[in-house]
Amino acid sequence: MAEKIEHAIQDEYAEDFAWCYGCGRLNQEGHQFRTGWQGEETVTVYTPKPEHTAIPGFVYGGLIASLVDCHGTGSASLALHRKNGFEPGSGEAPPRFVTASLHVDYKKPTPQGKTLKAVGRIEEIHPKKFKILVDVFAEEELVATGEVQAVVMPASFAK
Amino acid sequence: MAEKIEHAIQDEYAEDFAWCYGCGRLNQEGHQFRTGWQGEETVTVYTPKPEHTAIPGFVYGGLIASLVDCHGTGSASLALHRKNGFEPGSGEAPPRFVTASLHVDYKKPTPQGKTLKAVGRIEEIHPKKFKILVDVFAEEELVATGEVQAVVMPASFAK
Repeated sequence: MAEKIEHAIQDEYAEDFAWCYGCGRLNQEGHQFRTGWQGEETVTVYTPKPEHTAIPGFVYGGLIASLVDCHGTGSASLALHRKNGFEPGSGEAPPRFVTASLHVDYKKPTPQGKTLKAVGRIEEIHPKKFKILVDVFAEEELVATGEVQAVVMPASFAK
Repeated sequence: MAEKIEHAIQDEYAEDFAWCYGCGRLNQEGHQFRTGWQGEETVTVYTPKPEHTAIPGFVYGGLIASLVDCHGTGSASLALHRKNGFEPGSGEAPPRFVTASLHVDYKKPTPQGKTLKAVGRIEEIHPKKFKILVDVFAEEELVATGEVQAVVMPASFAK
């Protein structure tokens, strides 16, 4: 089940934007989530670490929220990049999104020791804003659902 | 501004329930959030670490989501504990809540290097379910708002 994302959008974020604790490939202390296409859906896979505990034996909800969050911004980036004529792997730096809002419904306790898989469906709200509906599975079991609204990174983030 | 929570509810969670990556006092790798009363509101303070980056210079939204999440469950625990006649510091083990749903609206980029303060207002939905409205400040600036629905830990979490 621990499928590999071949071409992840985060692999191609410009270096300045590749330090996210959730999904930055350059942040060695972070989760380094990687998000790619699977048909018209998007997928991120991640196996929580032993310390990502809620109650012993179960995964911390904040880790799931982080997964949904970065899966959302990555999915929005994939979608706008595709709309612009590019796929990850092309070497073209994709647009970078930030989260406007994040919602997670926890459906059942998430057992530790299983690989999590976030699956996203993307809807364009307007050219700079996307909504991503996310299902999170622990192996075959649906454990959480979420919704992310992601916007193209505003200039206020520039240093 | 880095005010100290004197009596935090998490200080008194039973040992088996004190391993949360967000707020477990026994999880040395986690954030060890601590939540206490401030009048009728609840407060959690936390200074993000340098690696909790979104875009360099700004705090990772997943960390803010985690803060809102654990602030919510801690606030619900405080509220039910008080309803049961106890305050943190009494040595009585409080009820442990888990998150049913989490919502965060990111209002503006959160600068790094500032202490975050989550402030909660609590509403009882029914005896085992509480809603917590959360404002997150970076020093004086409101950077995010959130809502947590927290429920008394169901038996399905027991091992």
